[in-house]
Amino acid sequence: MTSWVRDAAGSGFDVDHLPLGVAVVGNRARIVTRIGNTVLVPAELFPDRPELTAATLNPFLAAGPGVWELVRQRLTRLLTDPAGRAVVEPYLAPVADVTMLMPVDIGDYVDFYASEHHATALGRMFRPGAEPLLPNWKHLPVGYHGRSGTVIVTGTPVVRPGGQLRPPGAEAPVHGPTTKLDLEAEVGFVVGTASQPGTPVRLGAFASTVFGVCLVNDWSARDIQPWEYQPLGPFVAKSFATSMSGWITPLAALAAARVDPPERTTPLLPYLADDGPWGLDLRLAVAVNGTVVSRPPFASTYWTGAQLLAHLTVGGASVRPGDLYASGTVSGPDPGTAGSLIELTANGTHPLALADGSTRAYLADGDTVTISATAPTATGHLTLGEVTGTVLPARR
Amino acid sequence: MTSWVRDAAGSGFDVDHLPLGVAVVGNRARIVTRIGNTVLVPAELFPDRPELTAATLNPFLAAGPGVWELVRQRLTRLLTDPAGRAVVEPYLAPVADVTMLMPVDIGDYVDFYASEHHATALGRMFRPGAEPLLPNWKHLPVGYHGRSGTVIVTGTPVVRPGGQLRPPGAEAPVHGPTTKLDLEAEVGFVVGTASQPGTPVRLGAFASTVFGVCLVNDWSARDIQPWEYQPLGPFVAKSFATSMSGWITPLAALAAARVDPPERTTPLLPYLADDGPWGLDLRLAVAVNGTVVSRPPFASTYWTGAQLLAHLTVGGASVRPGDLYASGTVSGPDPGTAGSLIELTANGTHPLALADGSTRAYLADGDTVTISATAPTATGHLTLGEVTGTVLPARR
Repeated sequence: MTSWVRDAAGSGFDVDHLPLGVAVVGNRARIVTRIGNTVLVPAELFPDRPELTAATLNPFLAAGPGVWELVRQRLTRLLTDPAGRAVVEPYLAPVADVTMLMPVDIGDYVDFYASEHHATALGRMFRPGAEPLLPNWKHLPVGYHGRSGTVIVTGTPVVRPGGQLRPPGAEAPVHGPTTKLDLEAEVGFVVGTASQPGTPVRLGAFASTVFGVCLVNDWSARDIQPWEYQPLGPFVAKSFATSMSGWITPLAALAAARVDPPERTTPLLPYLADDGPWGLDLRLAVAVNGTVVSRPPFASTYWTGAQLLAHLTVGGASVRPGDLYASGTVSGPDPGTAGSLIELTANGTHPLALADGSTRAYLADGDTVTISATAPTATGHLTLGEVTGTVLPARR
Repeated sequence: MTSWVRDAAGSGFDVDHLPLGVAVVGNRARIVTRIGNTVLVPAELFPDRPELTAATLNPFLAAGPGVWELVRQRLTRLLTDPAGRAVVEPYLAPVADVTMLMPVDIGDYVDFYASEHHATALGRMFRPGAEPLLPNWKHLPVGYHGRSGTVIVTGTPVVRPGGQLRPPGAEAPVHGPTTKLDLEAEVGFVVGTASQPGTPVRLGAFASTVFGVCLVNDWSARDIQPWEYQPLGPFVAKSFATSMSGWITPLAALAAARVDPPERTTPLLPYLADDGPWGLDLRLAVAVNGTVVSRPPFASTYWTGAQLLAHLTVGGASVRPGDLYASGTVSGPDPGTAGSLIELTANGTHPLALADGSTRAYLADGDTVTISATAPTATGHLTLGEVTGTVLPARR
């Protein structure tokens, strides 16, 4: 399939991608898709689809997989059929001219801990001398709820958080800005259709429940976290800001990226037993001020998006359109593939060199973190929408 | 102040209370207040206040303390001035005739662990032989995010959750319904005004940020929790359902209930240093199938609602109108004052006797749990709206 949009082929946003987002177009928040270096407002083309006129994707997500597929097919037709050109061209705008907004109104945000390499590395650091993976880790995807109200869209700056931290060797904690501000490169899953309270979402319902994926930076304060997190988990250290990309890539665009997840050495209970290759070959890149510091391979993640959803709802918790759940930090097995600075710098002891000659143990004020990713398609690759954010100094 | 509403005095819903909620009145969701055994739709009386016409309290909460106080004063005047009677009476409906709905659209729900007696009792059970309170407990209010999408209003039944649990002595977990379904009696705080991202809410801004309190039952699966909760906190065991009362009691009605919190034996960092008596003398009662099994005194809770909010936002996390944060289980120092069955029955080893002659280690299908509370007022006491729910069998 070839689009008549000239710069689409090879751009990462070809007609086989068609991510959705929300952008300011003509002084209004509009649902948009992207083809090459232009954005398009689908509501202008499909007046019979009122859910596309909203200021967030939620009504469209709630409409369910039949509508997702219908709109995708129609867009594909218009963007490949030369006769579509006259219809579509009036509604194209350069992507550089629009500001991306939060694509969804998030009800609940859950963060998992699905990468074995990440969990092992952090277990070694936080519990030295002990078995790095806790006994439950290979039986269930460990997760916790994050703060949906502080999920922000790419481009939004992040104020360095304060909190309680206990300096090494001190008895009592102090209150001040974090000195160990970290990034976490993650993949997010955006829920489309609602589920019923009391009824778990089975593995097989993953693709009819989840609309697509995004990139997530789950900013973390590494000196606040160890003091606060026992026994109920991370709180202040991870609730101040979580950045997400503005573009949601539909699962429908990722068929060629599906791979088998890593081999399971521990038997899984039936509700978590893989019933299809829902690993995803997303190749992430993490850049600090333009220097790529890591290339985490999402395919190495132990738990799949389908398993995360099945476990999230196994107790009967329901999901709502626009809910977001993320993989947790994506870290690969090899050097230079970890998705956080605490791993890449061995908790700050081995600073990274940036292209400008400076070094980083953790993030400095003014630093810009950008997470990007590509995924294979039938004919090449697509580019996920990046997630970027700049650190502002702590407020007094 | 005496109301002309005949059954108001002594009802717990006198004119010095005036809680707010949302109920079905005339086939529509309406914001209501309660006086004696009748409900009243304030929007019918104050056409200049459009935020009262919404189907949730969120727009009214967002309007801020000036509007909260104005509406309260006007209602008080109308309900005490005999001339108000002719104005108000057409809009009174018997409370027995209306169904309460969720009073707020909750953005984020946070649960704390603010009762020293509860944290100590659970520490003894989960970490026998070790110091029951962890080193951070008296320095900061430990908390975690819950699932806002599964907060339900009083009267909504709760399906017994399933999940992974590891039977005593077993190596591998099994999947099945919880056999240790517990209640947790808590006090919830409903946020009114939004705060700015990156800017903590100081202790002194508590009463202009939080509108009022409700009662909460944070249902918990005690056999799922110990297997899943390390290292990131409770997840499936507490995300299937959290019940809240339909009536929100304004802080403005609780002036006579304010008390000093328990003595602080550990110095507090300035951002948490009490600057006024924000302990609240709420006297809870927990009933199972009509038998009162506990009377937890909220005044014994170590951390105040003002401190919980200051800590929740110390990292710069913002709050939104309608956010809910809860105290965690309220347990007093004496026998028969714990707010959970795990404490009252010593993890099921000392079952409770109910009035019908049956006993309970944990909750059985069909059980109804009701949490109620009273608080002193200048002239007597008020009754908080109760929170009740019945357990339905697990789904297959």
